[in-house]
Amino acid sequence: MIKKVLIANRGEIAVRIIRACREMGIETVAVYSEADKEALHTQLADEAICIGPAPATKSYLEMEKIISATLVSGADAIHPGFGFLSENAKFAELCEKCNIIFIGPKAEVIASLGNKQEARKTMMAANVPVIPGTKEAVYDWETGFTLAGEIGYPVIIKAALGGGGKGMREAHREEEFEQAFKTAQQETRNAFGDDTMYIEHFVQNPRHIEFQILADEHGNVVHLGERDCSIQRNHQKMIEESPSVALTKELRKAMGEAAVRAARATNYQNAGTIEFLLEKDNNFYFMEMNTRIQVEHPVTEWVTGIDLVKEQIRIASGERLSVTQEDVRLSGHAIECRINAENPRKNFAPSPGTIKDMYLPGGKGIRIDSAIYSGYTIPPYYDSMVAKLIVWAKNRKEAIAKMQSALGEVIIDGVETNVDYQYEILSNEDFCKGDIDIEFIEKHKGEILCS
Amino acid sequence: MIKKVLIANRGEIAVRIIRACREMGIETVAVYSEADKEALHTQLADEAICIGPAPATKSYLEMEKIISATLVSGADAIHPGFGFLSENAKFAELCEKCNIIFIGPKAEVIASLGNKQEARKTMMAANVPVIPGTKEAVYDWETGFTLAGEIGYPVIIKAALGGGGKGMREAHREEEFEQAFKTAQQETRNAFGDDTMYIEHFVQNPRHIEFQILADEHGNVVHLGERDCSIQRNHQKMIEESPSVALTKELRKAMGEAAVRAARATNYQNAGTIEFLLEKDNNFYFMEMNTRIQVEHPVTEWVTGIDLVKEQIRIASGERLSVTQEDVRLSGHAIECRINAENPRKNFAPSPGTIKDMYLPGGKGIRIDSAIYSGYTIPPYYDSMVAKLIVWAKNRKEAIAKMQSALGEVIIDGVETNVDYQYEILSNEDFCKGDIDIEFIEKHKGEILCS
Repeated sequence: MIKKVLIANRGEIAVRIIRACREMGIETVAVYSEADKEALHTQLADEAICIGPAPATKSYLEMEKIISATLVSGADAIHPGFGFLSENAKFAELCEKCNIIFIGPKAEVIASLGNKQEARKTMMAANVPVIPGTKEAVYDWETGFTLAGEIGYPVIIKAALGGGGKGMREAHREEEFEQAFKTAQQETRNAFGDDTMYIEHFVQNPRHIEFQILADEHGNVVHLGERDCSIQRNHQKMIEESPSVALTKELRKAMGEAAVRAARATNYQNAGTIEFLLEKDNNFYFMEMNTRIQVEHPVTEWVTGIDLVKEQIRIASGERLSVTQEDVRLSGHAIECRINAENPRKNFAPSPGTIKDMYLPGGKGIRIDSAIYSGYTIPPYYDSMVAKLIVWAKNRKEAIAKMQSALGEVIIDGVETNVDYQYEILSNEDFCKGDIDIEFIEKHKGEILCS
Repeated sequence: MIKKVLIANRGEIAVRIIRACREMGIETVAVYSEADKEALHTQLADEAICIGPAPATKSYLEMEKIISATLVSGADAIHPGFGFLSENAKFAELCEKCNIIFIGPKAEVIASLGNKQEARKTMMAANVPVIPGTKEAVYDWETGFTLAGEIGYPVIIKAALGGGGKGMREAHREEEFEQAFKTAQQETRNAFGDDTMYIEHFVQNPRHIEFQILADEHGNVVHLGERDCSIQRNHQKMIEESPSVALTKELRKAMGEAAVRAARATNYQNAGTIEFLLEKDNNFYFMEMNTRIQVEHPVTEWVTGIDLVKEQIRIASGERLSVTQEDVRLSGHAIECRINAENPRKNFAPSPGTIKDMYLPGGKGIRIDSAIYSGYTIPPYYDSMVAKLIVWAKNRKEAIAKMQSALGEVIIDGVETNVDYQYEILSNEDFCKGDIDIEFIEKHKGEILCS
């Protein structure tokens, strides 16, 4: 069993990992930047090692410094948390070379899943649905027309060299295809001096549904149900919940089995997440697989009772999964709101600064994962997420009421936060009905204000 | 359904009730003493009414003031919390007379269960085991000897007028009886000028095991499993947990059924607790029934997922229980530590004062019910309990590790607390083995120190 873990991260996830280690009787080593001398993770760990100045590139992203700190402290494992080096295959490889356990999948697995084209091919081979699309480049509209019919409307026509929406057109019906293709191709020629096109099925107003999986080195793989992470602003998740109102038992089973196939196909080990887009007609498509613990893991923990970070450590120690698929039961409903130090009235500009006065709610069904405290100064160098408020209740309606009540109690004086903005979303009629998709924030822009 | 609740209490339980109401869409009215102007419950409720100066007798115990506040505010119900007026039959009756819903059992039920002799008789009639003892007074040792044989050794011989251990002797074997009886009777004559004696079975080193029940006005009664509250100091509970390691499935069923019989026998409605003493040989005896929500209710909430305060309100509104006995499943293990502002090095003298700096832990499996905050002044007039730290994990071992880790994070600067003392208990070998009974603190006095 792992005896001492170096946590190559900061903030609430570093605190989360330190707590899990402590409860397992594992020693902890924090690393911190000069800006994080007073950070909670620095204070809570058994040991703390300064690894450089504030910008992450000079500390939390400095592989050699982190490896050195690990060797110096005698830690036998590194937990990378999320962000920073957590999905860096080179770092995982460096750990392997230095005989340090990297708490996550093998370096080659991280690398192969990081390559979107390779991942797509692997998933197709494993019978995991991917967004249907042309396998080869298309140069003329007639060929494209035939392929579009096979793919199924609506389709999106994309420039091979495209980006930023250039050379991209939707066709919702056969009659629209010729015109759309020609316009897109002309735009592509003008923009990139190229006329190579691809055609993909256009996924309309999908939900972001992801499945948590756990896999050990003995070939056991289970999924722990889904998280609905459709509430996003600029592709940043804001609210996550489990279960999703969009999933029937049958769909959960189908998507869960696809997630398990995805993990098996890549010889995955440790905790991971398979992200899908889910259409209104219940078609779902693989987007990507995240090879780390995720910000939103607590909602899964609460509906399953399973401690994901402890499972990660046990798996990395070579142990077998503590549960079988049959053991996994989803109970009740959990919602997470990300609390960011940012100003929704100024286009969500980060709002670092000193927290003068702070009160965070507690009581039944309330979990707070944070690294802030009264008097703490939020540095300007890192992600603006400062706390996660997670609630659990027996059903979604009660969970929403609990989250509203809890958000209403939060006091974080001295910096701006998105707490009122989150409250507005929680009070939105469509949100309460469960009528959400990844366009939710965009669609409701006018209604969600911060008074 | 109840629309507006006046909370006739203070501290963490008042906050607990306010939160439950808010989540149910029910308006809340706090009452507060002049000393509680800055208290959290005063700030959190929708309305707050001052009901007098600090000593509880002039505010929280003033029935007329509380009734007036209820009528003035237009609240249709009163939640009494625990302590204060919560088990006062006269107050419940007053509520009934004023057409105010008292969130608890009927006044006559509170009264009959408050009378120990009457309660004992009711339980015997309902086939709920009580401590075996003589039904009539005993005056000579020969009669006593015969009765003791029927009761079963060990026995305790007690003066009818006794108190403070005077006129009380144990007899563990037949041979000890004559001497013990005569000594006890002589002491009784000397102390009270009387020689009326009783004999009871002596319950040796029992555990305190209590069963939570819920009963509606439609005749539905369920039990929600047990709480082991054996860790007590001077009959004050310090640590409570659920489930108890001492209960097999069969014993849980037998005790749970006895608890349900006890509730049925008294036509009980609302949440209640049946307290038992449990002997090492698995004999259990009714002690008393508490007709209120209890301090330790969160451990039951966490292993069952049921919100007891919400259930209380629903029952008082005339609704049916939301669960049947078959629905009730105990999952994982929960432990509660009571955090008191008191000085264990000065015989646990209360330590009121201003909290300068405060940090309470969070994260997976941590629940904090408290009414304190940074800068809050704990007044000297009330109970010294300022917070409850509740943990949940999949088994007792993990829950203990979690509680140790969480206690280690607590910072409450400015007042003395029992946090270190609780940590010592949690680290005690016998406690960790589950080898506990109501004498635990007394037995381990020398070992449990506060450094």
